[in-house]
Amino acid sequence: MSKLFMFEKPLGMRDTLPSLFEKKKQVRNQLAEEISSWGYQYMATPTLEYFETVGSASAILDQQLFKLLDKEGHTLVLRPDMTTPFARVAASKLLNNSPLRLAYEANVFRAQQREGGRPAEFEQIGVELIGDATMSSDAEVIALMISALKRAGLKSFKVAIGHIGFVNSLFLEIVGNEERANVLRRFLYEKNYVGYRNHVKSLNLSSIDKQRLLQLLNLRGGEEKIQEAIELVENKEGKKLAEDLQSLWNMLDAYGVTEEIKIDFNLVSHMSYYTGILFEVFAEHVGFHIGNGGRYDQLLEQFSTKTPATGFGIQLDRLIEALDEEAYEEVPVYGVLYSQERLSEAIALAAEQRRAGKRVVVQDIVGVDDVDVFTAGLEEVSFLIGKRGKGGQ
Amino acid sequence: MSKLFMFEKPLGMRDTLPSLFEKKKQVRNQLAEEISSWGYQYMATPTLEYFETVGSASAILDQQLFKLLDKEGHTLVLRPDMTTPFARVAASKLLNNSPLRLAYEANVFRAQQREGGRPAEFEQIGVELIGDATMSSDAEVIALMISALKRAGLKSFKVAIGHIGFVNSLFLEIVGNEERANVLRRFLYEKNYVGYRNHVKSLNLSSIDKQRLLQLLNLRGGEEKIQEAIELVENKEGKKLAEDLQSLWNMLDAYGVTEEIKIDFNLVSHMSYYTGILFEVFAEHVGFHIGNGGRYDQLLEQFSTKTPATGFGIQLDRLIEALDEEAYEEVPVYGVLYSQERLSEAIALAAEQRRAGKRVVVQDIVGVDDVDVFTAGLEEVSFLIGKRGKGGQ
Repeated sequence: MSKLFMFEKPLGMRDTLPSLFEKKKQVRNQLAEEISSWGYQYMATPTLEYFETVGSASAILDQQLFKLLDKEGHTLVLRPDMTTPFARVAASKLLNNSPLRLAYEANVFRAQQREGGRPAEFEQIGVELIGDATMSSDAEVIALMISALKRAGLKSFKVAIGHIGFVNSLFLEIVGNEERANVLRRFLYEKNYVGYRNHVKSLNLSSIDKQRLLQLLNLRGGEEKIQEAIELVENKEGKKLAEDLQSLWNMLDAYGVTEEIKIDFNLVSHMSYYTGILFEVFAEHVGFHIGNGGRYDQLLEQFSTKTPATGFGIQLDRLIEALDEEAYEEVPVYGVLYSQERLSEAIALAAEQRRAGKRVVVQDIVGVDDVDVFTAGLEEVSFLIGKRGKGGQ
Repeated sequence: MSKLFMFEKPLGMRDTLPSLFEKKKQVRNQLAEEISSWGYQYMATPTLEYFETVGSASAILDQQLFKLLDKEGHTLVLRPDMTTPFARVAASKLLNNSPLRLAYEANVFRAQQREGGRPAEFEQIGVELIGDATMSSDAEVIALMISALKRAGLKSFKVAIGHIGFVNSLFLEIVGNEERANVLRRFLYEKNYVGYRNHVKSLNLSSIDKQRLLQLLNLRGGEEKIQEAIELVENKEGKKLAEDLQSLWNMLDAYGVTEEIKIDFNLVSHMSYYTGILFEVFAEHVGFHIGNGGRYDQLLEQFSTKTPATGFGIQLDRLIEALDEEAYEEVPVYGVLYSQERLSEAIALAAEQRRAGKRVVVQDIVGVDDVDVFTAGLEEVSFLIGKRGKGGQ
């Protein structure tokens, strides 16, 4: 075990210096204003949860969990997502008033395996709409996500929408069991389409069925792909699920957000709790999706209540990466440098500027090592030095 | 080890339901506006730090630390305070531009020993003024804390200001060594004044010296207590430290905040890193202090840089406990209930209300189990049900 330098931070842990903090705050506030204006209520849950309850119900891989032991020998986890804790609270306290509209802005934790990789702690901002099985609620969370991203200043982005229920139905119809369906799903989740094709070719299936499995790879594009999906699947349930996506599209059209929508029946998430519609947001110049969501109608069963739900989460640091500099407002800081005998004057001047909405640093000149360096970042500095009248402004 | 119920949370961990979340947000924003207007820059540090660096430099008792092991065998801690991580960042990255004015709003973690006690995770809001040894910076952080608390709506509160340097100087002068001084400090820290008196009586000292030690207990009150302190101590250094408190008082007078100030030379903090001025804020009806702070001129040495610093932290949940209900603005939520064929109309109506600054829930009537229950908490509900013109507004 190597000795640590005094300044080191644990793997994947990052400081947020003032300029980034300010950007995050502005974007978080924009998202929150939109989310609150749709009647969603923010709530918070603890950083630590029991592994036995929330930890094991979450869809995050065990090796990604930060674990510790409490004094009674129970394993605690740093929450790896917000959906599962919110399911706990909703199921235990809030469901009498459903549908529930809840929102969060919170850090989640996923242990990383190597240096220079993804952050191990990152902020998610999102909503959960709990207790409504209608496609209207799927449409609402997608429309809200798009509105919130636009409000935050995001310009060029697409939301890929798929349906894990449809994919499961098609796979079961053709390959017959969950285990074989799972192999196919994994290729899609990894976006390994070459592997998918090769695997399909190797299967002991009729050439028509192989063709149908390969045809799934083409179900990515505009609204017309929904009709192709309805035709591709043969069982009624599968057709119904694809038709649901058509209703969703029509509702998103009413919300005026179809310009940002792409249909993608190849979408499979690592979040294993999704049961229906699911979606991911992609922005220009950012390699990973900046947000995702979907329907999870079985998660709340783990908390002893059968309740449908849907929601989305946006990863704040990725959204910030996707935003132009012009999405932010620069906030200048003014300065008043004084010498002791003019403290009252300095306080009065700063108070006046603050009343006008300015940010003002008031600094005793004796405490400054290098006035040039100290004032370099300030917008404008007033010097109240020496007896009144001698110092210039 | 008992089996857990699905809804249980770890010891000292709490959910923040929507109404409390909204209050916390409003108060946090008020504090942030004041703090930012004084030119302080917000920053964030990770939830996890190395025990070997930040964990051991912090003043929090080992048994209060949440600890876990990383893959290399290093011990990590959930940060127990913000001052130490900020010292790490300031020392490693920011000090070229001092004095630095930094601020935080962050959760810290302190393990609790029993159920029903204090929270194990709680939000602190505070500032650090780093790199300025002048008493002006002590005055500034105290004045800022008072202004921020007033802006948050706090009405009846007092800030007790002491000087740990003065106390140490007096004790050393009379009892001669750190060990014996430490016993006396512990009685003061525990506010066990009976124990202090008895201990003083038992000491092998002249009756004059015993009287001087007992006299310290009277050094609590208004400005006049500073002069009494100057007279009580005999060594020059001690007199100088008490005189510093007089300059501080004069500056706080210039800031116009002496109405909230009490002098308390008995103040001793559990935060062992304080070296000079220290203070605690007390509000009516709240048993613990709601915030505290002080000068810590030696902490940054642990991060290889000799830099003076001062700051304060406010405990948000205790501040909320101290605030009247009228400190908060109630935010009503409006509702639009629609049936599918009138979705576009519902979207348009809600958009119009949102543009007017309202929070509006839009809900498909099919998704609602009990309309009366669902609408009970809403300010005003528009029903867009059935063909246009049939549903009432």
